[in-house]
Amino acid sequence: MALIVQKFGGSSVANPDRIKNVAARVAKYHGQGDQIVVVVSAMSGVTDNLIRMAREIMPLPSEREMDMLLATGEQTTIALTAIALHALGVPACSMTGAQAGIVTDGVHSKAKIRNITPKHVHQLLDEGNVVIVAGFQGQTMEGQITTLGRGGSDLTAIALASALKADLCQIYTDVDGVYTADPRIVPTAKKLSEISYDEMLELAGLGAKVMQSRSVEFAKKFGVIFEVRSSLNDNPGTIVKEETLSMEGVVIRGVSLDKNQAKVTLIEVPDKPGVASRVFKAIADANLNVDMIVQNISHNAGVPATDLSFTVDKPDLLKATTVIENLKSEIGYKEVLADEKIGKLSVVGVGMRSHPGVAAKMFETLSNEGVNIEMISTSEIKISVVIALDKGEQAMKAVHAAFLG
Amino acid sequence: MALIVQKFGGSSVANPDRIKNVAARVAKYHGQGDQIVVVVSAMSGVTDNLIRMAREIMPLPSEREMDMLLATGEQTTIALTAIALHALGVPACSMTGAQAGIVTDGVHSKAKIRNITPKHVHQLLDEGNVVIVAGFQGQTMEGQITTLGRGGSDLTAIALASALKADLCQIYTDVDGVYTADPRIVPTAKKLSEISYDEMLELAGLGAKVMQSRSVEFAKKFGVIFEVRSSLNDNPGTIVKEETLSMEGVVIRGVSLDKNQAKVTLIEVPDKPGVASRVFKAIADANLNVDMIVQNISHNAGVPATDLSFTVDKPDLLKATTVIENLKSEIGYKEVLADEKIGKLSVVGVGMRSHPGVAAKMFETLSNEGVNIEMISTSEIKISVVIALDKGEQAMKAVHAAFLG
Repeated sequence: MALIVQKFGGSSVANPDRIKNVAARVAKYHGQGDQIVVVVSAMSGVTDNLIRMAREIMPLPSEREMDMLLATGEQTTIALTAIALHALGVPACSMTGAQAGIVTDGVHSKAKIRNITPKHVHQLLDEGNVVIVAGFQGQTMEGQITTLGRGGSDLTAIALASALKADLCQIYTDVDGVYTADPRIVPTAKKLSEISYDEMLELAGLGAKVMQSRSVEFAKKFGVIFEVRSSLNDNPGTIVKEETLSMEGVVIRGVSLDKNQAKVTLIEVPDKPGVASRVFKAIADANLNVDMIVQNISHNAGVPATDLSFTVDKPDLLKATTVIENLKSEIGYKEVLADEKIGKLSVVGVGMRSHPGVAAKMFETLSNEGVNIEMISTSEIKISVVIALDKGEQAMKAVHAAFLG
Repeated sequence: MALIVQKFGGSSVANPDRIKNVAARVAKYHGQGDQIVVVVSAMSGVTDNLIRMAREIMPLPSEREMDMLLATGEQTTIALTAIALHALGVPACSMTGAQAGIVTDGVHSKAKIRNITPKHVHQLLDEGNVVIVAGFQGQTMEGQITTLGRGGSDLTAIALASALKADLCQIYTDVDGVYTADPRIVPTAKKLSEISYDEMLELAGLGAKVMQSRSVEFAKKFGVIFEVRSSLNDNPGTIVKEETLSMEGVVIRGVSLDKNQAKVTLIEVPDKPGVASRVFKAIADANLNVDMIVQNISHNAGVPATDLSFTVDKPDLLKATTVIENLKSEIGYKEVLADEKIGKLSVVGVGMRSHPGVAAKMFETLSNEGVNIEMISTSEIKISVVIALDKGEQAMKAVHAAFLG
């Protein structure tokens, strides 16, 4: 008998019929003698509708009240899911985040889980029930309702799996698992049977939309092994876990292409201490998220000057150039260039630690394709390059073919 | 500075615009320096939609899960109402029933309030907030979410007014208050400025749809004076309170017509002990609610026999006649008649205690109109007669004219 946490997202519970499908899947596991905790999101569309109504009343509603409002979405789903299990003759009981013992800090709309006291969950499981817990939500010590922010339901599932010492945590989604590349772009992409937390984190940060980084980080921190799999079929998914020796045998785990970045370049910045810190303090003060930063070596023999480039999320581009233009007199650069027609292509794999020459092979592949590299950034298990957007998919296919066949 | 509890029903909060109207009204009172507790229902249509989804999954869903499900309706409204007050610059804080300290028994779908610990409500009021409490819901000592059943939001408001020792409790609705008769039938009907709990109770039981009896009973028990008034204008409404001496000066407070009853008559029932109890035990076992019962005197000189009539809610008529037919061999009556074309016309007033002749005047009025009386039932402050349905409105107008002008 295993204790399994199963998480279903908004599209898997979008209407009463889909909720019945989820219940049928859960009932099958329960019928095999497993103890099941189900974590569900709000039915897709419900959260957006609540946000729309709130904004109709006030453009920037209070985060405390938004948490009160949005928490109803998951509460609706847990009750309907419990009813769907009852309809199949399976004993089941729903619990809000608060009832399941999920205690958070008081940072409304992006609360952090402080601890979980799953005594009542265990009790209900021991009485033979499937326990259905509302994802995305918790409660402060003072009884205030909080939500966990984006990807919060995944986090609920992984944190509950940790607190309950579950044997398995399954994240059901609308894809079959994690792929070596986006199969819509690279038809030869393969589903991975396993991937390390670190690789998954890099991919999450690189535009692979399967999961938010914070859930993976939580899983890594507490050693929760989880499986990403499809709610539409019974295929095994991708197991995400601590790095193993066998993983190092594979040089590259996956290739990703992020089309949502834009590049800002300051031309002829005086090459003196404090300039970069001034630039990025201003950017941070404007609450803009910078991804890659590259400072080229001085190329002007007379005045020590340099070119400074960085990337931001595409929707933030105008805001970023405005911040930089406001610094012009203070810093004294020559001009600022903005480019939204870029793509960030990355290769990820823990194997590159023990396999030298990955960067060389990647750059050579791009060169053979006639793709110019505009920026480079590397970590221990990742190499990212910025290239022209219109060469992005061609470059991705070539790099995937070079490393992964 | 007064402490006022204001309750707004589903149609008053049906959409973001109406919620803004409610907020504007609340803000006006708050601006005058009053402390305001707002109790709201689910937005109209929301509860029905949740019930529809649940029944799509299972025709008879568990009451515990229905409470979990339906409690989201009021939770949505409290958050949106708080946001609407913030938009007007009024400090406001929403609370679920549980957070407001409303503790109930564990009878899901029709829980009774056990006690209210309004410490947090008082704290928030003292900090200058409008406090918005979800109607219709509470929590057991064990942390289970419960709902109070029909009319539950009125009950929440009145119980909170009692626990908070409020100066005033206002029940906002879509009518201007309690009328001497339904103005759609009797154009000369007048709004009452005040009415006693007992009169209100009789009217509630007689088809006047303003409020459920249990809320009025609760108010009477704990001496909570409340006002029924319109959310569409600023007209004063009807104050409901303990009987006063001045109320006795008025013979009749109001006239009501209930078209939702049906009559069952057993012809030639043996006139011997135990027969009536056998009939009404069977009716009670079938969970049918009986209103009036009349047993005529024996009219058969040979065999002691009698005719026994009673009324039930119209939708229960078939069930009632079936129960009676199953008793035929045991009791030995001659035949059973069913009549759904009846109306129950009632006059209500504490004044009739000190004004003899009310019944005579009512019967004379009906006689003058050519209306035949089929059944009569009286209480201390009420006289009801069953008449033909097609004479109902004519009779109501005549009786209203005779007593109330």
